[in-house]
Amino acid sequence: MLVVSFPDPVLRDAVGEVGGIEAVLWDPGSGPAPDDRIEVVVAPYLGAAEKLAPVADLPNVRLVQLQSAGFDGVLEVVPEHVPVANAAGVYDAVTAELAVGLTIASLRGIPDAVRRGDQAQWVPLGQRTSLVGRRVLVVGYGAVGKAIAHRFNAFDVRLTAAASRARAGDDIVDTIHGIEELPDLLPHQDVVVVIVPLNDSTSALVDDDFLSAMPDGALLVNVARGPVADTDALVRHAGRLRLALDVTDPEPLPDGHPLWSAPDVLITPHAGGNTDALVPMMAALLREQLGGLAQGHEPRHLVRPIVKT
Amino acid sequence: MLVVSFPDPVLRDAVGEVGGIEAVLWDPGSGPAPDDRIEVVVAPYLGAAEKLAPVADLPNVRLVQLQSAGFDGVLEVVPEHVPVANAAGVYDAVTAELAVGLTIASLRGIPDAVRRGDQAQWVPLGQRTSLVGRRVLVVGYGAVGKAIAHRFNAFDVRLTAAASRARAGDDIVDTIHGIEELPDLLPHQDVVVVIVPLNDSTSALVDDDFLSAMPDGALLVNVARGPVADTDALVRHAGRLRLALDVTDPEPLPDGHPLWSAPDVLITPHAGGNTDALVPMMAALLREQLGGLAQGHEPRHLVRPIVKT
Repeated sequence: MLVVSFPDPVLRDAVGEVGGIEAVLWDPGSGPAPDDRIEVVVAPYLGAAEKLAPVADLPNVRLVQLQSAGFDGVLEVVPEHVPVANAAGVYDAVTAELAVGLTIASLRGIPDAVRRGDQAQWVPLGQRTSLVGRRVLVVGYGAVGKAIAHRFNAFDVRLTAAASRARAGDDIVDTIHGIEELPDLLPHQDVVVVIVPLNDSTSALVDDDFLSAMPDGALLVNVARGPVADTDALVRHAGRLRLALDVTDPEPLPDGHPLWSAPDVLITPHAGGNTDALVPMMAALLREQLGGLAQGHEPRHLVRPIVKT
Repeated sequence: MLVVSFPDPVLRDAVGEVGGIEAVLWDPGSGPAPDDRIEVVVAPYLGAAEKLAPVADLPNVRLVQLQSAGFDGVLEVVPEHVPVANAAGVYDAVTAELAVGLTIASLRGIPDAVRRGDQAQWVPLGQRTSLVGRRVLVVGYGAVGKAIAHRFNAFDVRLTAAASRARAGDDIVDTIHGIEELPDLLPHQDVVVVIVPLNDSTSALVDDDFLSAMPDGALLVNVARGPVADTDALVRHAGRLRLALDVTDPEPLPDGHPLWSAPDVLITPHAGGNTDALVPMMAALLREQLGGLAQGHEPRHLVRPIVKT
């Protein structure tokens, strides 16, 4: 039997019985493991990088399975000989739909409608910005970026994509620009959606230069990670630009932080992934992953490969 | 020269010079026409049905051009011998994008995020509803309905369409159900978007029976006209259902009306059409329409045909 630890009973029960698997409960954030036999650790949904250190004490561990797509900070904590897999695919659709929803909400004035509705008053929103015909740049073109681009493509926008390296396009965009082209691309965009992984080369990518290159009234949407943007720069450009942020730096954003009261800023508190699709989709991924391991297959979705010794 | 009245100088200036056309300014809501020679009346953007009565006094009028897609109440006011054209196509994209934006905002908790953000507090939204995989029914399958369906189709939903009469499907849906099938369709939907024209057969279409047939937690989106729904029934079902309404009955919704404070209700104050795309798109439609008329062509987009005498 392959012994697998689950961080909570809800996820364990959603996965259900998998042939060849013995499930135990362990949240690595709660302290040492209850069972030395654990070979696969399913990480907690939130805060994996802060919680996974006790994995180092497991003598038989051979995979850490994350519940997130991003893995910033995780590889520094999990011992080097332990492969790490992410939750590839689980967040593509839900993050992409939030990115589109934040964009339309911001452009069309839904936050102001909420405020006026809460006052029980009909106050016309006046003329707002439509999405049709707009120039939309998606920065980051992995699975989630592509899912975002696919959705925007249905809105009759003029779509551009950029990623860490320039490459040929696909069925959605003619070409994928390299990130070094951003200074040339940004001045011509109405909406910029950022969905890059957080790493050394993307930390503070959205800095004062980036934001200064965006035209007045343009919208920045960050559904990547908070530290991809420089918070002070965001505060400075709010109002000249519109901001829609699912992530912030720091996170949680402290009560009373200036970003809360900056003009034209819409913040959702890291809500990109937490929907009722999460547990079923994560359970499906785990059933496939664990079932494969029990049958002797290599793990899928590795973000740190197996070291052959 | 064909004499055309424009209700405001902004629209007149956006249209610009058109060969064979003489432009005069006249808002029919302001009183009698300043010029008996007017042959084409461009109606005001809002309240055409209430404002167009003075058209009856124009001896040479041969077309009323609406700035709206809907024409509820207009044909009762404009004399029977005067053809009426609507603004076909101008609202398809902007209304469709608002319908999708309202849907995602409502499902993903953007109104709550706005409220908590205004308190400068990071409070996780908890688990919300994703759009991916949901069953979405579009009721009304004219140009705007099709534009809505096209956009939802990019979100990996299970899409169904219904219209006044059953007919074959298209590149978006396999079949278009007849409106008489609604009692069978509604119990199986997560999101129902209403975009029917307002007429005798659709007035109060969304009544207590309609709403009762929708499952608990489902979302109703009304981007059609307010009287398509029975307001008292909406108030009764709010909370059991989620409601996202761009239109209400009456409109404006009075200050303090119970619908404002009903649970899980998101209201935008008839913001479907009023974006910065409006004037350019309306001007393009008018240039085409007026240019054609000046060259002796028949008017396009007629909702009341020319009576041959």
